[in-house]
Amino acid sequence: MPAAPDEAGALRKEHRGTRDHGMMRIRLCNDLDWPQLWAILEPVFRAGETYAFAPDIGEDEARRVWMEEPSATYIAEAPDGRALGTYFIKPNQPGLGSHVCNCGYVVGERARGRGVASLMCEHSQEEAVRLGFRAMQYNLVVATNEGAIRLWRRHGFEIVGRLPGAFRHLRFGYVDAFVMYKQLVPGGW
Amino acid sequence: MPAAPDEAGALRKEHRGTRDHGMMRIRLCNDLDWPQLWAILEPVFRAGETYAFAPDIGEDEARRVWMEEPSATYIAEAPDGRALGTYFIKPNQPGLGSHVCNCGYVVGERARGRGVASLMCEHSQEEAVRLGFRAMQYNLVVATNEGAIRLWRRHGFEIVGRLPGAFRHLRFGYVDAFVMYKQLVPGGW
Repeated sequence: MPAAPDEAGALRKEHRGTRDHGMMRIRLCNDLDWPQLWAILEPVFRAGETYAFAPDIGEDEARRVWMEEPSATYIAEAPDGRALGTYFIKPNQPGLGSHVCNCGYVVGERARGRGVASLMCEHSQEEAVRLGFRAMQYNLVVATNEGAIRLWRRHGFEIVGRLPGAFRHLRFGYVDAFVMYKQLVPGGW
Repeated sequence: MPAAPDEAGALRKEHRGTRDHGMMRIRLCNDLDWPQLWAILEPVFRAGETYAFAPDIGEDEARRVWMEEPSATYIAEAPDGRALGTYFIKPNQPGLGSHVCNCGYVVGERARGRGVASLMCEHSQEEAVRLGFRAMQYNLVVATNEGAIRLWRRHGFEIVGRLPGAFRHLRFGYVDAFVMYKQLVPGGW
C-alpha cells in the first residue's frame, strides 16, 4: 500500500501489528496499560450516551468486557506514551457468524478532534483482515452520535438497519440506534 | 384478552407464566427438562443452517447458552409431556440496551408444521412484556430460512436490516442474514 497522508496529515508507516502515524502509534495493549485505558473509558461509560454498558459499571467488569473477552485490544498513544484512545475487536457471533467481527472504540476526552477515531477505524479494519475476519458490524450506533455515524460512513460502513428506541440515552431517553456493516473481503465468498 | 382461535386452531387459556393451548402447553423449563431439550436442539445446531452456534458445539456449552445465560427458558410440550419445542429470552445488550430482548426458538423435527413456533413466538412476546422488555430483536435470521422470516413477519416483526454474507451456511456457504425487530410497548416511551 503506498504511503498516503491520513486524516491527521501524518505519513503512515506500516509495521507488523503496530502502526506509527507520526503523531501517535497504535499497538496491542497489555495489562500495564489498563489504568490509562480505564481513565479514558470510565467517563464515556458513565455518561451513558454512546455505549450500552451500564453507566455504573465497575472497573473489574469494564476490564472484562474491554480487555478479556475480546480477541484483541489496542491502545493509541502519543509519542510520550500517553493514551489517546483504545479499541477492541472480537467475533460478533459464535461459530457460523464468527467471520464477522465487532469493534468498540473510545477516544480520550482530551484527544478529540485529532483523527484518533479515524486512525483506529482504519487500523481495526486492517487488523480484522489480518485476524481472518471478512466483515465488520457495529450493533448499536446511537442515532444521536452523529459524529461517529459520519466517521464510520466515511470509512466505508453502511447503515444497514435502524432499531427504534433501542438505546436508553441518559440525557435524551429512548433513542434509535443503527446497525452498521462493512464487508472487508470482496465478494465471491 | 378474549380467547381466540390460534394458528393451530386450539383455544387459548391463560395462566400465569404457563399457557395451555389444548394441543400443547408452554412453561418455564427446569433442569430435568434438559435431556429432552438437547434432543431437540442438537440436530438443529449440528445442521448449521439456522443458528450460528458452532455445529460441533458440546452439550455443556449448549446447555450454558440455552439454559443458563438467558433470563428464562421455556418448553412447549404435548399433553403427554413430550417436548415439542423450546425457546429462551434474554437482554440483547447490557445496561442502556437491556430493554430490548432477544429470543431463540427451536421446534423439534417431529413437531414441525403444527404451529409450535407460532405459539412460542406469541408466548415469548407476552413473557417479554411481563419481564419488562420493550422490544424484541432477532440478530441473525438466516436469509435462506424463509419459513421463519414469513412467520416472524406475520407476528409483527419487521426486517430492519440485511447483513451481507453474515452467516456461513453449512450447505450453501456465505448467505445474508436479517436483523428483525418489533416494538412491544407502543410509542411515547
